[in-house]
Amino acid sequence: MYDMTIRLQLNSEKCLYEQIYEHIRHEIWEGRLLAGERLPSTRSLAEYLQVARSTVDYAYDQLQSEGYIEAKPYRGYFVCPIEELLQLESQSRDKSAPEHTGGCETQEAPAPRYDFSPHGIDMSGFPFSVWKRITKNILTAGNSELFSRGEPQGDGDLRLTISRYLHSSRGVNCSPEQIIVGAGNDYLLMLLEKILGRHVGIAMENPTYMRTWRIFNSFAYQVLTVPMDESGMAVNELEKTQARVAYVMPSHQFPMGTVMPIGRRTELLKWADGAEDRYLIEDDYDSEFRYRGKPIPSLQASDEHGKVIYIGTFSKAIAPAIRVSYMVLPRTLLEVYRRDCYFYSCTVSRIDQRVLNEFIRDGYFERHLNKMRKLYRAKHDLLLQELAPFEKSFAISGEHAGLHLLLTARGDCTESELIERAAGLGVKVYGMSQHCVEAVEGHATVLLGFGAMEESAIREGVGKLKEAWL
Amino acid sequence: MYDMTIRLQLNSEKCLYEQIYEHIRHEIWEGRLLAGERLPSTRSLAEYLQVARSTVDYAYDQLQSEGYIEAKPYRGYFVCPIEELLQLESQSRDKSAPEHTGGCETQEAPAPRYDFSPHGIDMSGFPFSVWKRITKNILTAGNSELFSRGEPQGDGDLRLTISRYLHSSRGVNCSPEQIIVGAGNDYLLMLLEKILGRHVGIAMENPTYMRTWRIFNSFAYQVLTVPMDESGMAVNELEKTQARVAYVMPSHQFPMGTVMPIGRRTELLKWADGAEDRYLIEDDYDSEFRYRGKPIPSLQASDEHGKVIYIGTFSKAIAPAIRVSYMVLPRTLLEVYRRDCYFYSCTVSRIDQRVLNEFIRDGYFERHLNKMRKLYRAKHDLLLQELAPFEKSFAISGEHAGLHLLLTARGDCTESELIERAAGLGVKVYGMSQHCVEAVEGHATVLLGFGAMEESAIREGVGKLKEAWL
Repeated sequence: MYDMTIRLQLNSEKCLYEQIYEHIRHEIWEGRLLAGERLPSTRSLAEYLQVARSTVDYAYDQLQSEGYIEAKPYRGYFVCPIEELLQLESQSRDKSAPEHTGGCETQEAPAPRYDFSPHGIDMSGFPFSVWKRITKNILTAGNSELFSRGEPQGDGDLRLTISRYLHSSRGVNCSPEQIIVGAGNDYLLMLLEKILGRHVGIAMENPTYMRTWRIFNSFAYQVLTVPMDESGMAVNELEKTQARVAYVMPSHQFPMGTVMPIGRRTELLKWADGAEDRYLIEDDYDSEFRYRGKPIPSLQASDEHGKVIYIGTFSKAIAPAIRVSYMVLPRTLLEVYRRDCYFYSCTVSRIDQRVLNEFIRDGYFERHLNKMRKLYRAKHDLLLQELAPFEKSFAISGEHAGLHLLLTARGDCTESELIERAAGLGVKVYGMSQHCVEAVEGHATVLLGFGAMEESAIREGVGKLKEAWL
Repeated sequence: MYDMTIRLQLNSEKCLYEQIYEHIRHEIWEGRLLAGERLPSTRSLAEYLQVARSTVDYAYDQLQSEGYIEAKPYRGYFVCPIEELLQLESQSRDKSAPEHTGGCETQEAPAPRYDFSPHGIDMSGFPFSVWKRITKNILTAGNSELFSRGEPQGDGDLRLTISRYLHSSRGVNCSPEQIIVGAGNDYLLMLLEKILGRHVGIAMENPTYMRTWRIFNSFAYQVLTVPMDESGMAVNELEKTQARVAYVMPSHQFPMGTVMPIGRRTELLKWADGAEDRYLIEDDYDSEFRYRGKPIPSLQASDEHGKVIYIGTFSKAIAPAIRVSYMVLPRTLLEVYRRDCYFYSCTVSRIDQRVLNEFIRDGYFERHLNKMRKLYRAKHDLLLQELAPFEKSFAISGEHAGLHLLLTARGDCTESELIERAAGLGVKVYGMSQHCVEAVEGHATVLLGFGAMEESAIREGVGKLKEAWL
């Protein structure tokens, strides 16, 4: 096996993971690491370089997401064929790249021409003028109290408005004092860590939303992965774990797009009833976007014993920069929050809270949602229709809701083959493996997000995919 | 001892602590708990009521801060004389009351006529029109990128502006990539918990800033208190602890107002150099307000080995609702942040970041600071001058910086006597014991904050204090 001697500079502007990433990348370009060659395991390289294993993991993740190396389940990491790399260059440093570049020097590379990112959203629909007008009206000297400290849970008006919206649109049963407003889900989860206490065994589906998985791993939590079946988290598998809390996305699981049927929901609630300190975290991240059938109420709506912690955000439905999320606590946990966390000030500025409150209260949010639903439905339907020719060689799933579809190859090609061939024609698609805690059995699957794409781009992009895959 | 049977309702709108607080309050009013009577210890009451001890602690804290009960070091809690309570009513539920009332139903009581809160700031100086104009200009369709996700550490422009401001005004040496922008100190400390790791022994001065003390206690930290001398944290005492991190406020310790001399700073830095994983957290919360002599540079400015974590906020210098704080990480910790925390998105909206950036960059912040310095200096000097007649019976300290002064009785009166006598004439002053983790030896000390007070109110308030105390 290739002996990897990397001179790491601790005083460098560059993070360690980045020095490792760039060294390996360079070795591949220079042909010192050849296609098909096996890389040292993350553990052994970490030991060899005397760095944390996660540093190497992260360097490998990035090399993999940029197509330089490929992970083969139970076998390790292997260098990809060099001839494909020239085309791959266009992939590096795009949206899928780690988000912490703030500060790290890195050479820019052109983004792919067609990016089917599952996280992209359409900003053209943002009601800019309305937002601006509301803000302007609020910023009048009469409102100078807006610049004094507000309530830790968020301003009462906003919490009332949110509770009404959640009840009417998602069937969530809660009173305003159960709601905690925070600057993004990440923050609310940090707060939840303080409420649930340390050393919590938390169960997540595999595959799942990796951002949340990383956050739970940064806590004093034992993160357990539970396999999924077509209904969502396999409760019989959950029963076997020591989990005290289970994190689920019942209205639209990411990345699978599964909508959890009522039967499975009941099983989950039963599991939670099995012990006093068991809870379910319901992440309702994109429940707003459903294109067929009537909206499915939240899991919280059928929770009779205060077992569901409901979390939602305005980042997806309005704009990523609107750093406002909300968490609905069961009374038992509200008690704990008030006892142990009352001193944490609210992280959302009162101006933002007030603007958002009027935006929802005065019906602009509902109008905006209808508009976006229509806009996304059109893109969704177009993508489905354009994908028709693929049905012989791919199974299409995850339709009717959310902002992405899944294509699963019926044949034996690997995920990275699909990604690389697409990249070769300037199309970026996203591999399922990126969202897997542990490798999942079965055929190669890629995600096609359409949220941020123009309809013309969807047509052309799918055209390129035909060339690449059919 | 009075046997306290309280019927707690778990399904009540009211928190448990509040039910306990109101029961005892009611018992005192009804005369069933008499002046001088000793309350059960928090431990025994907690065991008796089968609630967490902190619930009882918190109820007692509130009763004490409202003057219903009094803590006698090493002896316990005692009911205050009833005749003083009628006047005390005006004190309850004021700024010093716990901040988590969001949601809890509580009857309002009139605020005191003169409130010398050490946390009050003068909002009349807030440059409302400028803030509004900048916001208006930023909210133009051309800036729609402001609604897309930003950098996790905060927008580069703002971090550059902050690094320049910190260098020129505080001598802080850092490059923008060492800065992390977050929605308030509380959040940045939560992030710091992820960076420093768990089970950290953290040393704090006694007395100290209790909000931060509570936050550290909510972490998996061992919070150690180290006594202060006239130079600040006693380093010889610090050496005796297992602390890995020490939290200090060198430019203006809260509540003591101590300015740490260079000698003590050097000792602290030496202590930190004593082990690789030792760090100092410098909270520079109100360094902007110094009225005599030239500004004292930050501790970070004399840190040569990357041992100081510098934290500052705009909440005090601009407005509490501007939820923007910043943390400057040493390179070694920056490395850890990028490895373990890169996935936490920034908690401050990009609009707020941009407004703040232009506010500082275009010189409005500097102008605002000069204006506020002048305004606070006038109040500070007036208060000092009005307090002249007190010097026979009180030692005055903590002058020349910050937004409060300290009065220490030369005689034997207790802190609560001072507070109650003042309250009797409608004046609220704040006891040092509120800021003590452990009871501190010595004479009764009260804090007189002047930030939020009109000059006329300062004159009249001090007049009342003369009646009450001299």
